[in-house]
Order: sequence, then structure tokens, then C-alpha cells
Amino acid sequence: MTNSEKSNQMANAIRFLSADAVEKANSGHPGLPMGAADIATVLYTKFLKFDPKAPHWPDRDRFVLSAGHGSMLLYSLLYLTGYEDIDIDQIKNFRQLGSRTAGHPEYGHAAGIETTTGPLGQGLANAVGMALSERIMNAHFGDALVDHYTYVIAGDGCLMEGISQEAISLAGHLKLNKLIVFWDHNNISIDGPVTLADNTDQPARFEASGWNSISVDGHDQDAIATAIERAKKSDKPTLIACKTTIGFGAPTKAGTNKVHGSPLGAEELAGARKALGWTSEPFVVPTETLDEWRLAGLRSAKEHTAWTERLNATDAEIRSEFERRMRGDLPGNFEATITAYKKKLSEEKPKVATRKASEMALEVINGVVPETIGGSADLTGSNNTKTSQTKGITPEDYGQRYVHYGIREHGMAAAMNGIALHGGLIPYSGTFLTFSDYARGAMRLSSLMGIRVIYVMTHDSIGLGEDGPTHQPVEHLAALRAIPNNYVFRPADVVETAECWEIALKSRTTPSTIALTRQNLPTVRDVHFDENKCAYGAYELATASGKAEVTIFATGSEVEIALNARAQLEKNGHPTRVISVPCFELFEAQSEEYKRTLIGDAPVKVAVEAAIRMGWDRFIGTDGIFIGMNGFGASGPIEELYEHFGITASHIVTAAEAKLK
Amino acid sequence: MTNSEKSNQMANAIRFLSADAVEKANSGHPGLPMGAADIATVLYTKFLKFDPKAPHWPDRDRFVLSAGHGSMLLYSLLYLTGYEDIDIDQIKNFRQLGSRTAGHPEYGHAAGIETTTGPLGQGLANAVGMALSERIMNAHFGDALVDHYTYVIAGDGCLMEGISQEAISLAGHLKLNKLIVFWDHNNISIDGPVTLADNTDQPARFEASGWNSISVDGHDQDAIATAIERAKKSDKPTLIACKTTIGFGAPTKAGTNKVHGSPLGAEELAGARKALGWTSEPFVVPTETLDEWRLAGLRSAKEHTAWTERLNATDAEIRSEFERRMRGDLPGNFEATITAYKKKLSEEKPKVATRKASEMALEVINGVVPETIGGSADLTGSNNTKTSQTKGITPEDYGQRYVHYGIREHGMAAAMNGIALHGGLIPYSGTFLTFSDYARGAMRLSSLMGIRVIYVMTHDSIGLGEDGPTHQPVEHLAALRAIPNNYVFRPADVVETAECWEIALKSRTTPSTIALTRQNLPTVRDVHFDENKCAYGAYELATASGKAEVTIFATGSEVEIALNARAQLEKNGHPTRVISVPCFELFEAQSEEYKRTLIGDAPVKVAVEAAIRMGWDRFIGTDGIFIGMNGFGASGPIEELYEHFGITASHIVTAAEAKLK
Repeated sequence: MTNSEKSNQMANAIRFLSADAVEKANSGHPGLPMGAADIATVLYTKFLKFDPKAPHWPDRDRFVLSAGHGSMLLYSLLYLTGYEDIDIDQIKNFRQLGSRTAGHPEYGHAAGIETTTGPLGQGLANAVGMALSERIMNAHFGDALVDHYTYVIAGDGCLMEGISQEAISLAGHLKLNKLIVFWDHNNISIDGPVTLADNTDQPARFEASGWNSISVDGHDQDAIATAIERAKKSDKPTLIACKTTIGFGAPTKAGTNKVHGSPLGAEELAGARKALGWTSEPFVVPTETLDEWRLAGLRSAKEHTAWTERLNATDAEIRSEFERRMRGDLPGNFEATITAYKKKLSEEKPKVATRKASEMALEVINGVVPETIGGSADLTGSNNTKTSQTKGITPEDYGQRYVHYGIREHGMAAAMNGIALHGGLIPYSGTFLTFSDYARGAMRLSSLMGIRVIYVMTHDSIGLGEDGPTHQPVEHLAALRAIPNNYVFRPADVVETAECWEIALKSRTTPSTIALTRQNLPTVRDVHFDENKCAYGAYELATASGKAEVTIFATGSEVEIALNARAQLEKNGHPTRVISVPCFELFEAQSEEYKRTLIGDAPVKVAVEAAIRMGWDRFIGTDGIFIGMNGFGASGPIEELYEHFGITASHIVTAAEAKLK
Repeated sequence: MTNSEKSNQMANAIRFLSADAVEKANSGHPGLPMGAADIATVLYTKFLKFDPKAPHWPDRDRFVLSAGHGSMLLYSLLYLTGYEDIDIDQIKNFRQLGSRTAGHPEYGHAAGIETTTGPLGQGLANAVGMALSERIMNAHFGDALVDHYTYVIAGDGCLMEGISQEAISLAGHLKLNKLIVFWDHNNISIDGPVTLADNTDQPARFEASGWNSISVDGHDQDAIATAIERAKKSDKPTLIACKTTIGFGAPTKAGTNKVHGSPLGAEELAGARKALGWTSEPFVVPTETLDEWRLAGLRSAKEHTAWTERLNATDAEIRSEFERRMRGDLPGNFEATITAYKKKLSEEKPKVATRKASEMALEVINGVVPETIGGSADLTGSNNTKTSQTKGITPEDYGQRYVHYGIREHGMAAAMNGIALHGGLIPYSGTFLTFSDYARGAMRLSSLMGIRVIYVMTHDSIGLGEDGPTHQPVEHLAALRAIPNNYVFRPADVVETAECWEIALKSRTTPSTIALTRQNLPTVRDVHFDENKCAYGAYELATASGKAEVTIFATGSEVEIALNARAQLEKNGHPTRVISVPCFELFEAQSEEYKRTLIGDAPVKVAVEAAIRMGWDRFIGTDGIFIGMNGFGASGPIEELYEHFGITASHIVTAAEAKLK
């Protein structure tokens, strides 16, 4: 075989593993793997720096299949290049319950899957975070330890999603020239030709956002290789627009939407075998071709060895710091620092907004945790996410620790996912809580992947005042609590805020959302600073003077109101407890006994939160009193709003006493 | 005064009304109104077709302030041109509770506010829907009745949001040449210069998406006028990039982020008065200038009269149809048609997926309701939103009724808002339920505005099977139910699906989300076809054979499972009721007695939904049995998934009987 024939057969191995797996599963997307096989072959055999025997090698190139429905492309590559996690049985069990080869690539299912993709555009935006991380880590640790590329295959759909614009304009702005995106331009979407819905000149669009663009025939492997070489020399991120035929090789369905999301069918698959000269049985790759692929998998082994030697030769302290960060461990002095800080707070009792409390906590945290990367979606002064240690990252100085993400909540969240996935850094960033709606697609993936991403969401209720209902979250706490594996914190004061930050940073497999106020709040926790009470999710903040007649559950800014109501109720002869509930999900993780005891059996149970009731029945039962919102907020000064919506201590007292009678 | 001096003073009237109102409220955004005052003055005095005395005139031009934080610009314009709803007291009460002049423009607060804006990018995307509606209505009713422009002022922030890309690429594709967008390019965002986070060449980006672009000095009123004239001649939508100075006139703060979101302060405001020669007291507009503005408000009165004459001269049937549609009334035969269709279904008892049931209902609806405009975010064959009556809208044929929205869920939802706001049309469109996350920013605004937008969300649970957890909603029903004023329907069969569609179409002030299955379901409603049972939100589908020991609440695909469990429980001697719960929000709207009776007092209450528990305690109490999901789904065949996650009739029976013992 000529070299060209060899590499064609290597691409065909991807095509038929993919088509055969889809056929056997009777479900899946053969079109993309067949169409993008040549791109993937060139990338994995000639360029990608990776070591299937050490798949977590920190300085590997990252590959992201943004068009996640083409998952069989990735699984085929992992099998062919020799990743242990994906053997031929995994390929045969594509899309079966319990297999690693899920319908869409799932992070954590197998090494070599760098991120979970499927929801379109997310992978591209993750890759921006990864490429940025590479530059940041490079600035911190130098070329010897960190010097790699991030490659993406994105489909027409990825580029239609709005998140792609946020991602590419951020990448262009930051001049992430080690980010190389292949656009699998097959011009087919589910409904038919892409031109049914879109006529964007994508290269021109990318160029307008500061990218380099190169157009090639996506089935000309030499042209693809030349394009990658050129891209690697660019001082900008590069789009390689690859004109491909979806379902390449399928005799009657190639180039149509019929091959996008359904098995080819026996006849069409046989026709493709004939057309491409692929004579092997299903799931069989000819030895010669498999050997070539396995050799490709060994290609970077030497480079890996050289890298390890460089690591070994690194100054011990730097090496140890690099390794700590890549493991994701926090510095040894972290806990003690937080405890000391809490002690100070419980003595000083500052009255500040929790967004300010968050800034104060971050000032302490950023001083001892050098791997935090802060940011904001253009609300820095409102989210209070910037501290003395963090300055804006620019193309001229990647060594800083703050990202001006711009007004791009969705792209920001997805980039944060990419930063967390890259390793070595802990991303946190903010917007207003109401705009979590914009970021939700990516926030869900933080939870699904189980990664340490911290969302700072300020202006967390009607307490923001005059900006009105578009800016006032009412359903967002419930909607975020609804996402599995998502810590939604709503701290009540400076101490709780510090505790929530401590938990968020320690939670390596759960993302956190910290909801914070615009308005000032008193310090209510002046004891127990030596224990992280928020880790219980809910705890007794104020005890009743006798057998409790009333228990009031509250979060965040409403804890102060609950305490005021308690004072009045106690005065009126009704022993009353106050339970602070900073995190529903952590509460559910406690023992049944803890939960039962904490909820208790006071005849009157009240929940107070300037948000909707959903979720609160868990604490107060269906016959409990809920003091909160029934609908959208309104524009006006904060005091008037709380009075208008009846979220006051006197409303609590009146309702509780009416029920006690 | 020269004409130029006059028009400068007219712009200054906007500037000082705005700055004075912000100053008095001690809150708000003076920068945009001061910067964009010249653009607005040219538009409202020379181009915009509007009649403040008849603000709902169907053929008025639409104006959308996408950069909603600059709300005082709009309020000033409405006051100055003589809209009754906004008098000087409203201006003085800017941002006060109960005023029409909320922090951000709120649709419904005052005539002339065409849409609610504030969350950035939404207004631009609404405008695409409005401009598309204009073309559709024009195709249906001709130039005599429908022939107007849609104008937008968008800020730097609007253009950074991903939704803007979805909007502009859709508008460019559809060649909506009567859409004219002013980009208030002041290069200032909250964090500082836009270049902190973005260096996009916006005109080039718009051109790449099929737009015409013109760049002007945003303070040169003649240049702005010339640009609009050119834009009106374009065969593409036009971006007019207006270089402006934020806070124009403020002596030390203009051109900086200090003037973006805070009052100027007394000294700076006095300085601006001096700099611009504005000698009036706060809230006073010199008579001559106010007269000029009021004259501008009368500018289109003649055109309005001519239009009314054309309407009167229109064929009676066409006129009546036009007026019916603009009122938003459904055709007279709508209810009878649905009832007849339900009767047929209850006899034929088809077993189909509810997404198919939705298509069947739509086939009937679209036959009698000519104003529905269907669509899908590139999942037409999966969402089943296309019927025999609807063909794709193209730039060559706007008279059709189906929009290929492309893979743009957020832009689609916002465009649907625009279509509903325009009037004359009822938008419905679909995606997978899990991707409601992408659309949520706009879906919330459907609810906040209270408009008739219908979201068809298919593949509504793990029942979609192999696509896996990225595509399987588990928290989305709860998260959508959390939004106030949002009907979330989950019908159980063909009959309920038809009923939910009927309610959705009749609900003029509440948007609807209809969650639909991929898998087939039997017809479970074979009686009561003559009443819309879904309108109760929850109703008894199967009665217990004696005093109920068990009540099972279920929705959608889990109703079949509940009925199977009931059969087994009854067989085992446990009288069991089944309650179908197609819509939580409608249930809550029923009388207390209905709700109490329906929930009943069976000793065992079970809720079954292939989703999380949140919200279900309302029905089953905190000690009820919930059969559903505790976390994310998995990739695999549907039957295995239901078994794996324990959502089966036998799990219900076992759990119920364990509790009965």
C-alpha cells in the first residue's frame, strides 16, 4: 500500500467501526465519524501529542469533539490508538447501559474523553477555557512543563449556537493561538441542508473576531496536514474550515441528512464497504491498519519521557507545586487560614453585603490558593470577584489571575468548565443570579461532569431593588437547586460566606453556586467559628428559650428577618428556633437522624426566602407557612419591596401567631 | 434657533430628562440616554411611523430599546412625543414602586414599550421576530395593511451576548431588510472599555451574516438620517454602527464607565447643563422644544388616517380576519373543532408518542387557525411541529407558516416573543426539553411579559433512551414549573395532548411549554372527551374501587405506569385512584375545595414522574412515596433505563404495599 492508501484505510477504520457500532446499537450518528475521519486521522497520527498509556499526562494536547453526537469518532480513535478504557467490547456495546461508550461522550467514563459534549457549542467553549488554562499554566510554570495545543472538531450546529460567538470572540480577544478548530463543514443539519436556516460566511465571521482562517478539502489528508502546520504558526486562534461529505462513502445517503442520526441500514452499509474497499467483518480492523494506528498511539511516548525528565529536573518546590495543582489538592495551610479568618470575623462582626463578604473571603483565599482564576461577565464591581491578587489576563500577560469574560455568561460558564477540566486551576466567576438563565446550559454540564467550578451569583433577590423584575431572581434558587450534583449556597453573613467558599473549594466533584446579596447584612454567626456549620446544609442558628412552638427556616438575607421575628415571638411568649439553611443539597446528605431532629416538631413551621416556595415543603411540610414570593418582583427601593411583598419580621410573627391560636 | 440647534436641543431634552430622573431616583443609567439621544431624536422626529394617540396602530413601526438599562431614553421619548401613559410625573417617579417607569422597560406598563428589555441581547432577537412577523403579515394581507419597519438600539453588551449571533444570522438568512439596528457603539461596558474583553469587528461580523452595514458619527444627526435613508433601500437588514460618547455632555465622566450605571451627581449634572447650554430646571423642557417634540408625535397622524381608510376599503371578510388576528381572538370554530377531534380520538384510541399526538393535534389546529407560525430549532422530524399546512418561510416566500430556526434555541425563543408581541400571529416551536436550558433567558421573558408563546419540548425524560444524560431532562420540568406565569404541560396521551394545545392557544397572557415523549403511549382518556379535563391542572383519571388506600399522581408517560400499578394494587385488594397531573400551575388556580378533595386522604400517596421530586411534596406530602429520578440519567435502551431507575409499576406496588403494612 502507498502511504496515501494506508492513511485512507486508517480513516476507513474509523468509518466502519463507527458505522458498525451504530448499526449494532440501532441508534446513533454515523454521518459525522464517516465525514470527519480524515481530519481525525491526520490529527491523531501526525499532530496530536498524547500518550494512551498515560492519558492524564498534564502536557498532552487536548482534543475536544464539540459535535458530541459523533461520539463514535472519538471512541474509534481511543480504541485504535490503544487507550485501555476503550476496548473492542466497549465499541460493540456502544449506547448500552453501563458501557463507557455512551450516546454522547461523557467525561469520566473513559480516559481520553476530555469533556462531556452533545449540547452543541459547549465543547468549543470548553476548549477556549482549556487553551486559556494552557497559557496561564505556561506563564506560571514555563515551556518546560506546559506547552500544548487544544484541538476541536466543531460541526455546523456548534457554530450556529450563540455560545459559539461568545467563545470565539473571547478566544480572539485573548489571542489564544494554540487553539485550532476544525469546522466539519458538511452543510447538513437534521432538517436538511444548513442553508435552510443559515447562510453565514463562517470564515469571515471568525476573522471578524480576531481569528485566522484556512479552508481545505476535508478529505484531502495532505491539505489538512498543511493547514495544521500553518495554524500552528499563527499568532491567532485558527479555524480550519474543512469541506466534508457527511457519511462519506455511503453510496446513496452520503451528503444528506439521512446519514446524520440513524443507522445506515444493512444494504447501505454493505454499499459503503464496497465503495471504500473495506472488506473486513464488523468490528474487525485489519492487522496492518490496526498496527499503524497503535504505532500512532506510541508516537508521543518519547516526548512524554522527555517531559518527565524535565519535570524531574525542575526545582523541587516548583515541581511539588505543579504536581499539587495538577492533582487538584488545596495548599496545606488552607483550612487553618479560613478558620483564623472566621474567628476574626466572629469578633469584628462586620455588617456588609454578602457579595462584599465574598470579596473579603476571596481576598484571604486568593492569598493562599494561587490557582484560583477569578472573573466576571462584565460585572466586576457588582460581583466583587476581583481581589488585590488578581489582575486582568491579557494576550501580553497570561500570568495574571482574572478574566474579563465580557457580557458572555454562557461562554464564561463553559470556559470555566474547560479551565476546571484542564487541571491546575480553579475557576470562579460571576454574574447576577438572574442571568444564571443565560449560563444554564453550561452550568448543567459542570454538575453532570462533576467538576470544581464556582459560580458567584450576586444580586440574589428583590433585594437588588430598582433594576426590577428582569434583574430580580425569584425562581432561580429553586431552578438551580433542581440540578443534581449542584451545591447552591445562600449564606446569611460574613461567616457563612467564608464557610461556603471553603466547602466550594474543597468540593472537587461538585460545582457550586454562591448566591449573594447586594444589600448589607449583620453578622449573625458570632459563635462556632471553629466548625464549618454550613457543611451541614442546615443548622440551628438560634435556639428556642423553651420547647419550640415555632421553627423558622431561612436563607441568606432572610435570616436576619427570621431572627427579628424570633425576638418578637419570644417576647410574646412563643419559644422560637431559627434554622439557617445555606445549602439544601448538603442537608440532604446528612443522616436521617440529623435531618429529623433539625426539622423538629414545633407546631408551627415557617420558611422565609425572598423567592418561590418550591422545595421548601421538605422543611415545613405542605401545611407550613411560607413567607416569600408568589410571582415576579417589581422595580422600587428595597425597603418598599420587602414590605410590598410581605417579607418582613412582622408578617412572620402575625402568620405564626395566627396559626398558634 | 437654526434647525440644527433645534434638533440638538431636542436631543438635550432626552439627555436631561434622563439624567434628572436618574438623579432623583438615585439609581439608574444616564450614560446610554445621553449618548444615544441624537440617534433617537433623528429616528423619532424624521423616520419612525407612530401615533402616540393610537399607540397600538397595527401598522406602526416597531422600536425596540434592546439596551434596556437605558430605559430613560424610551420614557423620555414617550413623554416628549405625547404618549398619555407617560406624563411628567411618571418621569419623576422613575424606578419607584407602582410607577410605569420601571428600572428597565416593562411590556404592558405603558403603551409604546414594545417589549421588556434589560437582559442583554433579547430586544435585538425580539426585533427579528417582529420584522419577520411584518413580512409574514404583509404576505398574508398586502402592503395596504402591513408595511412597516422595525428599529432597534442595541449596545455593545447586546452584541457580545451569544443570542445576538443567533438573531443576526437568522435575520440575515431571512433577508429581513426592514430591520434596522443602531449599534450604540460607545465602547464602554461596566468593567471599563469594551476592549477589556472584546475586539470584534462588528460590521464585518454582521456582513458575514448577510447584513448591510453603515458606520456613522452617532452625534451627527444629518449623517444618521442619511444612513437610515440608505438602510431603507437595502435588500438586507442593516446595522448602523454609531460611534457615540456615553454620557455625552457630562464634563468629566463622559466616555467612561462612571456614567454607565450611576447618577451623575449634582456637580457633574450641573456641568453637563453648562456644557450643553441647557438652562431649564430638572424635569422642565422649554416650551419651544417640547412643542417641536409634540409636533414630531403628530407626524404620522396623516399616514395613520390613510391607513385607516385603506382598512375601511378592504374586503369585509379580509378586514374582519385581519382585525380578529390583531385582537388575538381565535377563530369561532376553534373549540368545536377540538371537541370533535377529541371525540374521534377517544373512540380510535391510537397508541402514539405524545410528540406524534402533538403533530396530530397541530394538523387539526393549523387547519382552522391560520395565524399559527410553527418551527423548530433544527429538530423538525423529532419535534413533530410541521404539518401539511406549514411550509418553510424563505426570503422568496414569506407567506408560509414554518420557520427553520436553525440550531438557535435562545434566538428562536426570543424571536417567538417578538412574533407574539407584534400581533396577528401565534408562534409555536420546538426543541428537546433538555435544551430549554439554552432558551431559558427568553422563556422567562415570555412569562414576565405574559404573552402567548408555545414551546413544544419533546424527548421529555430518560424515555428518549440512548442519547444519554446530556439529552435526558431530569430537572427541567421542575425548573420550568418554577417560573411564574408559565404553564408547563405534560400530557399523558392523545386526548390530553389535544386539551393542552387547546389551553395553550386560549391562554393569551401565559406562555406554555408542552413536554412530550419520544416513546409511544396508549390512549388512557376514553371518556370525558367533551370536557377539557386538563384545564383543572390535575383530575381523577381512574377511581378507586372502594375507599382509596392508595392515590397515585402521575404525568405524561408515567400515567400508563400508574394505571398498571393501580390494576395490580386493586387486584391485591387495595383500592387505588390515579390522578393525572398535566399542569401544576392550573391545578393551583383551582378552588381550595377542589384541590383538597382531589389530593384526598388516602393513607398512601405516590407520585410518579421520570424526573426529580422537587414540587411533588405539594401532592404527596413530605412522607409520600416518590418514584422518579434522583440524579442524571444514562445512555441505554428505554426499557432498561426505566427498570434501572426503578420507575415501573412493580416498584410502585412494592413501595405502596410496604407502606400499607
